[in-house]
Amino acid sequence: MEMAAAKAASGVVVSRPLTFVTGNAKKLEEVRAILGQTVPFQSLKLDLPELQGEPEEISKEKARLAAVEVKGPVLVEDTCLCFNALKGLPGPYIKWFLQKIGHEGLNNLLMAYEDKSAYALCAYSFALGPDAEPITFLGKTLGKIVAARGPNDFGWDSIFQPDGYEQTYAEMPKDEKNKISHRSRALDLVKSHFAEAGYIFETNDSKKSEL
Amino acid sequence: MEMAAAKAASGVVVSRPLTFVTGNAKKLEEVRAILGQTVPFQSLKLDLPELQGEPEEISKEKARLAAVEVKGPVLVEDTCLCFNALKGLPGPYIKWFLQKIGHEGLNNLLMAYEDKSAYALCAYSFALGPDAEPITFLGKTLGKIVAARGPNDFGWDSIFQPDGYEQTYAEMPKDEKNKISHRSRALDLVKSHFAEAGYIFETNDSKKSEL
Repeated sequence: MEMAAAKAASGVVVSRPLTFVTGNAKKLEEVRAILGQTVPFQSLKLDLPELQGEPEEISKEKARLAAVEVKGPVLVEDTCLCFNALKGLPGPYIKWFLQKIGHEGLNNLLMAYEDKSAYALCAYSFALGPDAEPITFLGKTLGKIVAARGPNDFGWDSIFQPDGYEQTYAEMPKDEKNKISHRSRALDLVKSHFAEAGYIFETNDSKKSEL
Repeated sequence: MEMAAAKAASGVVVSRPLTFVTGNAKKLEEVRAILGQTVPFQSLKLDLPELQGEPEEISKEKARLAAVEVKGPVLVEDTCLCFNALKGLPGPYIKWFLQKIGHEGLNNLLMAYEDKSAYALCAYSFALGPDAEPITFLGKTLGKIVAARGPNDFGWDSIFQPDGYEQTYAEMPKDEKNKISHRSRALDLVKSHFAEAGYIFETNDSKKSEL
């Protein structure tokens, strides 16, 4: 109890729970599995504009816009799939490429290249509120693009094979994937930051939850 | 003079000249060559967010944002290069692809496909002001993607060969390109709309220019 009090004294008290901006139930599930109960968060689907640009800038700007909407602390997430032969593209535009040309089309983009290496990039940005500068946490997992293998129900997971593994993301058991995924690496950084900063998010039911 | 008066009576008087949002001198030059003296416009470079999405939606949203910034009538322009084999991509993201992988890289994207057909798409959106719904004008020119030929100083012009021509955009004389280009086709629609609507833009020096 004494330790809790000391932490509370040094922490920033935030008068709202953390809002994780997503409309994707699978992402929410993954985040909960990794962050666990350490942060009181609620999820919210916001219709934010999706921006073009470099992954880190896109993420920061999204957090700024979300914090204005929510009028409180927000966590936003973006995922990129970056092909080295294409200098990091499709990158932030992977969603559109997946939607329009599918797994085979994504493989075809690399037909001209021997280099099939790629990296999965996850950017989380956290903003304390509308006037705060967002902090960005980047997680990266190296791998390569392969013909689709495994269940086909989560984005491009079936065409990304992380380095050191014989399985694609889609073929890996969830807990194994969570150990090495770009998302878990970024979330580890989020978690560490929260632990160090000692934010205290007041939850909806007016109890204080402490980190 | 009587005709002018009649037009003025039916036209919408807009208390500001039209702002064409661009930071690109070459685009401004092209627009002036096509629109000529029919519309009193000034150009302005605005640091607007670039959005992801479908070309028409991106264009409308850009006009909305620009009209809020300018607090007056705006015209915005976006260009896409759409590969049919890639279901319209890179499309609105062509700028990043050109920047990162260049002309050869763009050709390489189609290595897996016999179909090299493509279309150049230009979207203009015009908004009368911050509260007006933008109107979009789309111009499309069909062609195919070829190895770069011609001067290398204007985007992807050297890899786009319009249907019915032996030359790429880059190899064509400017006035010939302006006759068939996606941009000129979209601007023709803008011009017709302005002529029909009979807007009267008041210019900075307080004289009225009539369309």
